[in-house]
Amino acid sequence: MRANMLPTEDFERDPSAFTDRVTSDGRYGRVAEPGRYRLVVSRACPWAHRVVMVRRIMGLEEAISLAVVDPLQEVIDGEPHWVFSEGNGDRDGKDPVLGIHALREAYLARDPHYTGGVSVPALVDVATGELVSNDYDMLSVDLATEWGDLAREGAPSLYPELLREEIDTVSAWIHRDLNHGVYRAGFAPDQEVYEDAVSNVFSRLDYLERRLAGHRYLVSDHITLADLRLWATLVRFDAVYHGHFKCNRRKLSEYPVLWAYARDLYQTPGFGDTTDLLHIREHYYYVHTGINPSRIVAVGPDPYGWEEPHYREALNGEPFRGDTPPDPVPENERVTDLEFQG
Amino acid sequence: MRANMLPTEDFERDPSAFTDRVTSDGRYGRVAEPGRYRLVVSRACPWAHRVVMVRRIMGLEEAISLAVVDPLQEVIDGEPHWVFSEGNGDRDGKDPVLGIHALREAYLARDPHYTGGVSVPALVDVATGELVSNDYDMLSVDLATEWGDLAREGAPSLYPELLREEIDTVSAWIHRDLNHGVYRAGFAPDQEVYEDAVSNVFSRLDYLERRLAGHRYLVSDHITLADLRLWATLVRFDAVYHGHFKCNRRKLSEYPVLWAYARDLYQTPGFGDTTDLLHIREHYYYVHTGINPSRIVAVGPDPYGWEEPHYREALNGEPFRGDTPPDPVPENERVTDLEFQG
Repeated sequence: MRANMLPTEDFERDPSAFTDRVTSDGRYGRVAEPGRYRLVVSRACPWAHRVVMVRRIMGLEEAISLAVVDPLQEVIDGEPHWVFSEGNGDRDGKDPVLGIHALREAYLARDPHYTGGVSVPALVDVATGELVSNDYDMLSVDLATEWGDLAREGAPSLYPELLREEIDTVSAWIHRDLNHGVYRAGFAPDQEVYEDAVSNVFSRLDYLERRLAGHRYLVSDHITLADLRLWATLVRFDAVYHGHFKCNRRKLSEYPVLWAYARDLYQTPGFGDTTDLLHIREHYYYVHTGINPSRIVAVGPDPYGWEEPHYREALNGEPFRGDTPPDPVPENERVTDLEFQG
Repeated sequence: MRANMLPTEDFERDPSAFTDRVTSDGRYGRVAEPGRYRLVVSRACPWAHRVVMVRRIMGLEEAISLAVVDPLQEVIDGEPHWVFSEGNGDRDGKDPVLGIHALREAYLARDPHYTGGVSVPALVDVATGELVSNDYDMLSVDLATEWGDLAREGAPSLYPELLREEIDTVSAWIHRDLNHGVYRAGFAPDQEVYEDAVSNVFSRLDYLERRLAGHRYLVSDHITLADLRLWATLVRFDAVYHGHFKCNRRKLSEYPVLWAYARDLYQTPGFGDTTDLLHIREHYYYVHTGINPSRIVAVGPDPYGWEEPHYREALNGEPFRGDTPPDPVPENERVTDLEFQG
């Protein structure tokens, strides 16, 4: 599906095109080494956001550099593309490290005949300029578990061996009903698919509202990859999924438990400090001309609620299980402060 | 502006094309007589809703019959038109009294050369099939004040002489910032006009939140035309203006005072019992393909909140100042019960 066309089929996300794995032991061919890889993301994109959160919580900022594309994609060959711009890249609108304007150049460096979709997150080999992986799930897992000593001291275990089965199970329905479910609603080709998708979204939120009432986090008493996965959708919910994707039975902020859970994480290092709500609103409303042809970017909602107290400390659980929280965000990666445009 | 085209200019509503006035003394040429006039409305349209509310509160149901068009307009000559359908009219999709399919036939009966917009509310002369007036403001005032003995006994004064100046003043800014303001936001041709309109909408709601905190109604301690005017926009706010028109700084239900004020009126005879939230959602989302090309009708929000207690009886004021409330809605004019589609 092209974001600038009216949807005609039930929305499906392309499978990841390139799935090389980078590990400290290099057992899949590529070795984790500092400065070798660059992570290209959009602050708007929930799939990329998850990897950015893992990178930060694991303290991999020095090891893997970060490139942030312009939230307003550029139409190239009739299709919106992630690009660097004067605002996000250098003066020529190129990424200063990779020297490319459009992310697809890294895909084409990997495979000159590649004609598939170009997505973020994209891990790129700085030495060759080639795309290594756009597999957001595997990137999250590998950054959380496979970068060994390059991760900071005291980094938490986001995907502990003993919990992997449960995290995978929970992740599967979060993906289906929420991460993907909101897109299925937003890009539905007809009323029936839309209503089915919205119904799944809210059944799942209703369930989570009950599940999280007595539990600070989704799996165990600490943050795991399952929370990152859920949260990447929740933080975008009222800003874009509620209105733009018509998931409007209610707002996230109308679920007392889920809204407190989401605020709790927002205020935890690695979450709110990697979130740019302006990029999120701008990207979705501006780029999806198939469903918002005017390109007008809705101003709401008032975002300051994210900073309100959440009172979830009263529950069992602590974010990082005695491990240390990440350091402050590096100066050059700071997101803009919450600001209300309306 | 055509609802099925992308807006290109700051939205302006066409002035009413025909403005004949009907009064009990006939001083403008037309005499109020029972059965002579038929009021054509859409349940979706806020401008028509106001006249429907006045008609009901004044007990003019017997004197002026009601015709309700299909909320899903039909494209005729490239433009969406109000029509009768099998569901709303007779088996041939015609209004059983006027014998017309498209409302514009009444406009053309009045002026065969008419090429302007066709809107509801439309008062039609049953004897000649000609449009009498589509002037929603004047229709509201005249039905509230000029139908004399044809109004029910104990009908209230919605536009009392002593308050007219204040009602007119209040009405002017409600019109500009809210009744019209939400359309200006929804059909904005660019970001700047949109943001200006949204800012006015919410500045006005913020003001009303304060003003109505200690006052049950807008002007005096009883319902006046000013309340009807405000309420016609409020009752549609969360259902369509919040998402579809991008007035999403917050929902009406996030304003404690305004939301209680709106519920209070919803539960007063003449208000909720003339409201069809399904017609409202269907019409806006389906017809405005310029801003919603998929025609997918958002399911939310959950409407049952309208029936929650409002506790506004504790304030001074009573709806109809000792006058009697209207009788139950006639059987053939009942709107469908609140029902949640999501």
